[in-house]
Amino acid sequence: MSDQVKISHEELERDGFCQNPFFECLVAEVHEEDKAKEGFTMVGYALYFYTYSTWKGRSVYLEDLYVMPEFRGKGIGKGLLGKVAEMGKKEQCVRLQLSVLEWNTPSRDFYAAKGALDLTDNEGWHFIRFDGQNLDNLANEAPKD
Amino acid sequence: MSDQVKISHEELERDGFCQNPFFECLVAEVHEEDKAKEGFTMVGYALYFYTYSTWKGRSVYLEDLYVMPEFRGKGIGKGLLGKVAEMGKKEQCVRLQLSVLEWNTPSRDFYAAKGALDLTDNEGWHFIRFDGQNLDNLANEAPKD
Repeated sequence: MSDQVKISHEELERDGFCQNPFFECLVAEVHEEDKAKEGFTMVGYALYFYTYSTWKGRSVYLEDLYVMPEFRGKGIGKGLLGKVAEMGKKEQCVRLQLSVLEWNTPSRDFYAAKGALDLTDNEGWHFIRFDGQNLDNLANEAPKD
Repeated sequence: MSDQVKISHEELERDGFCQNPFFECLVAEVHEEDKAKEGFTMVGYALYFYTYSTWKGRSVYLEDLYVMPEFRGKGIGKGLLGKVAEMGKKEQCVRLQLSVLEWNTPSRDFYAAKGALDLTDNEGWHFIRFDGQNLDNLANEAPKD
C-alpha cells in the first residue's frame, strides 16, 4: 500500500524528534545473525502517542504496529504491544487504545483474548474524519477572532 | 453522567498546562448580559489534541465538544468545531478526526453534511480499549529490557 503513503522521511524526523513530538516509536531489533533477507536487523516498530479523555485523563494510543512478514509468529508484535502498555503506565495512562479493521479477525481475536473492549461493537462508537477540502471548509467557516 | 468522571481539577491543570501538554482547549464565552442562568459566561468548550498517522502525518483530534443546553442551537458548537479545524490547519494537520455514538443521529448527520467520512461504516474501523487489570497485564507481560 506504499502508494498511499504521503509522508517523507524529513517530515517523520521533524514531527517525531522535535521539542514537543507528535509521536513516539519503539523498534524491534534482532541479532546480526538473525537479520532479515534484505540485511535489516530492525524488523518491526510500534508508533504511538498520548491522547486524553475529559473524564478519565491520560491515554496512550497505538497508531501503528508492524512486524516484517518473515519475523511474524515469534511474539515480536506482542512484545511491542506490551512495551507500549508499559510506556503508557509509566506516563500514568489509564487506557491503551487502538483501532482495528473489522475483517482483521486474527488481530481482533488477539485483543479480545487479552481482555480488550471493542467500543464500536459494545457502545456504538464510530470514527469520523474530515480531510482535504472538507477540512479547509471547516477552518474557513470558523468565527473570526 | 458525572458519576463516570474520574478526573480532578488538579489533574486537568497538570495535564493541560505543562511543558508538553496532553490536550488543548478552546472555550466559548458570551457577553455578561447573555450569561447563563447560573451566572456563567463560559458556556461551551472544545477539548482536542494532536495525533499522528504513519502514512499521512499530523492530525487534530476533537475529543470533546460541549455547549450548555440553554445555549444550543446558536451555532456555538459549529463555531468551536471550526476553530479546532483552524488550529489544526495552523499546525499543518491534514485531518480532523473525532468519534461519535451510533445513536447520535443529529451529530452524525451534521458531520456528514459537512463532508466527513464515517470510517467505521465505510472502511470497518473499530475502536479497541484496554484499561484496568487488562492494561496492567499487558504492561507486566512486556519483555524486559
